[in-house]
Amino acid sequence: MAKMNALPTQAEDFSAWYNDIVYRAELVDLGPVRGSIVIRPYGYALWENIQRELDAMFKATGHQNVYFPMLIPMSFFEREADHVEGFAPELAVVTHAGGKELEEPLAIRPTSETIIGELYSKWVQSYRDLPLLYNQWVNVVRWELRTRPFLRTTEFLWQEGHTAHANAEEAQEETERMIGVYATFAQEFAAVPVIVGEKTAGERFAGAKQTLTIEAMMRDAKALQSGTSHYMGENFARAFDISFNDVNNEQAYAHTTSWGFSTRFIGAIIMSHGDDKGLIMPPKLAPYQVVVVPIYRSNDEAAKEQVMAEAGRVKSALLGAGLRVHVDAREGMSPGRKFNEWEQKGAPLRVEFGLKELEQGQALLANRLSGDKQAVALSELATVVPEELAAFHDALFTRAVQFRAEHLEGPSAVDTVCVKCGKPSGYQRKVIFARGY
Amino acid sequence: MAKMNALPTQAEDFSAWYNDIVYRAELVDLGPVRGSIVIRPYGYALWENIQRELDAMFKATGHQNVYFPMLIPMSFFEREADHVEGFAPELAVVTHAGGKELEEPLAIRPTSETIIGELYSKWVQSYRDLPLLYNQWVNVVRWELRTRPFLRTTEFLWQEGHTAHANAEEAQEETERMIGVYATFAQEFAAVPVIVGEKTAGERFAGAKQTLTIEAMMRDAKALQSGTSHYMGENFARAFDISFNDVNNEQAYAHTTSWGFSTRFIGAIIMSHGDDKGLIMPPKLAPYQVVVVPIYRSNDEAAKEQVMAEAGRVKSALLGAGLRVHVDAREGMSPGRKFNEWEQKGAPLRVEFGLKELEQGQALLANRLSGDKQAVALSELATVVPEELAAFHDALFTRAVQFRAEHLEGPSAVDTVCVKCGKPSGYQRKVIFARGY
Repeated sequence: MAKMNALPTQAEDFSAWYNDIVYRAELVDLGPVRGSIVIRPYGYALWENIQRELDAMFKATGHQNVYFPMLIPMSFFEREADHVEGFAPELAVVTHAGGKELEEPLAIRPTSETIIGELYSKWVQSYRDLPLLYNQWVNVVRWELRTRPFLRTTEFLWQEGHTAHANAEEAQEETERMIGVYATFAQEFAAVPVIVGEKTAGERFAGAKQTLTIEAMMRDAKALQSGTSHYMGENFARAFDISFNDVNNEQAYAHTTSWGFSTRFIGAIIMSHGDDKGLIMPPKLAPYQVVVVPIYRSNDEAAKEQVMAEAGRVKSALLGAGLRVHVDAREGMSPGRKFNEWEQKGAPLRVEFGLKELEQGQALLANRLSGDKQAVALSELATVVPEELAAFHDALFTRAVQFRAEHLEGPSAVDTVCVKCGKPSGYQRKVIFARGY
Repeated sequence: MAKMNALPTQAEDFSAWYNDIVYRAELVDLGPVRGSIVIRPYGYALWENIQRELDAMFKATGHQNVYFPMLIPMSFFEREADHVEGFAPELAVVTHAGGKELEEPLAIRPTSETIIGELYSKWVQSYRDLPLLYNQWVNVVRWELRTRPFLRTTEFLWQEGHTAHANAEEAQEETERMIGVYATFAQEFAAVPVIVGEKTAGERFAGAKQTLTIEAMMRDAKALQSGTSHYMGENFARAFDISFNDVNNEQAYAHTTSWGFSTRFIGAIIMSHGDDKGLIMPPKLAPYQVVVVPIYRSNDEAAKEQVMAEAGRVKSALLGAGLRVHVDAREGMSPGRKFNEWEQKGAPLRVEFGLKELEQGQALLANRLSGDKQAVALSELATVVPEELAAFHDALFTRAVQFRAEHLEGPSAVDTVCVKCGKPSGYQRKVIFARGY
């Protein structure tokens, strides 16, 4: 195997560092079509963990999952004036299908307000049908010119929540509730501190009356938008006739919201936590929270057998503690190379042992964030590792908060999100960061 | 609300029954584009349960999830002669994107062998890189003329597994292993008995050397193909140059497989178990395994308060037993109408009580399959309901096996799948049913 060039340092070229580490850590590969990426197992496992946690939070706040068709008649976009202006330039359009030219071209969804509006119009007749609290986990396509893995790709994965309410108050409450869910998730699961803000009119979602955003500071001190929640007022309800008989038996328009969180957030995780050695995965989302590297000389069969047997026992014990654990049993690769690889891939903790450690009934526990190694009794691993992971999360979050405090310019609004309740409390009604990415 | 017409009986018109119940039970609605459907919360929850169980089985057999781009250059399809012949007529094609005509048109994936082959070619260099055992949960588009909800829609959801192996034996073993996983899932989770068979050359997947299928008998005695697993030989490896240095340092082609299971299986569940009253959901996949219907007169506030308080306690107890439970607390709707609705939607068990039952410390437990109602002490519900659900699954499976035995024509191959190990043992190497749907 050819020796790889070194990873660029963040200080010399943050952008080059990012573009290199996403491939090197095997999160993605380039797709054959310009601007497309393949999400590889290590990257997709991170997305699955994000999905699982967010989905549980959506369900806990009363939402149900659905699936709407991906192909949307072009004419739908024209019904909401701002929406078509915002999205028309980025649409990918199907003109032929089944060997024939279509009567009406179909756009691949860039977002689904229009097709969902069409169905909500049918489902909402009475105030008793409200609220509708739906979400879908899907792929979308936006034909952007400048693309970067995760941050901006022509196709990406996301969830889009779409809700309809009987009045403005409930819809605004929902808009705030969901930006709060995103903020809580970012901080409590990804250890990424965020600031909740409101976008200026010019930066709002196309068709929205209000767009709330969470913004996180990357390690080049630029901001990254990491999730948005929109209050649409009656804009889409009027465009798609989502109207109903209210409690007084009068006709009224619904007030709608939408909110989205995408694979772009993987970029936020990479750039919030990574360092010159590579990725640092937040423990609650890491594909592998702990990686076991057994140490033996390749020609020492007896040592191999003993060490691998212990690796199996350690794996069982850690699985039993509810952890995501991986034993790196690859042959023909030195332990040192494995250490480097898992450092680059950002596994939070590494358990290492050979015969020398086993004789003392212990293993070395390496911490990716601090760089420390400590000896831990084998019998204690299943209790020590979860504690270390919890401490790792806290240290990672604290480091990110400190970094932000040192680099924040402009109106200081740090800690404006209530981490406990997830509700944005007293956030600044202005764009706090200049948009960095 | 207008009174709905009655559901057609299965005997008078099975097809009309199907086309009616999928909408009536709120599994789907029609999409705005011909042949497209919206999967509503009750239908999508069923799909989520299918996904969760199958995904766990895939991971337990060593597979990892990934995501490949949806848009595939048209030229990719032409590299495998049979594949292009099979799929070209059904492709939906993007010709314009970002306001411009594309240099090369892009097809929306109808299946992903080609784009995955392109990447596997890059990732597989040595025998040490094999096997690759990947799966993805995605949407696909096939422009079919005759469409029916779930059974055949222009866009559908599925998983597609794609694996590459060092030799024919391992790939064939994988092909059989995965049809076995589908068979086990169908029988143990959906209570749908299946027969594993091999398709004739003319019915094989386009580009495959062997196609295994599970077929289930619907209640009109027709067969429905419900999952397929394909052995590709070296066909795709040669077309996309998936080659490697083998253990003897000689160049060899990989042997590949693919296997898929889609939302079509929801159609199999509906038509395997439903009756003239509507759906019957298999307990292990049912969106709600048990529905609680509180009974009180709408003008009796005191009764309502007492009954609803007990409904809350029952819900907690059943949730505590790990069940999916729903309390139907809708106002302005009689208990009788709720009973009918949940019968139509096929909730396996219904718990009903009013003041009369509460005074005796009990509830009525209604069984959707047998139609029986039994009195159960409130304090026993959390133990009785799980037992009843397990018995329900067994009874549903037995009923389906008996129905099939009574209606099977041609070579009898019932019970050829080992339910325990999930492996097809001694299955007939021929198409057992004529394809019904």
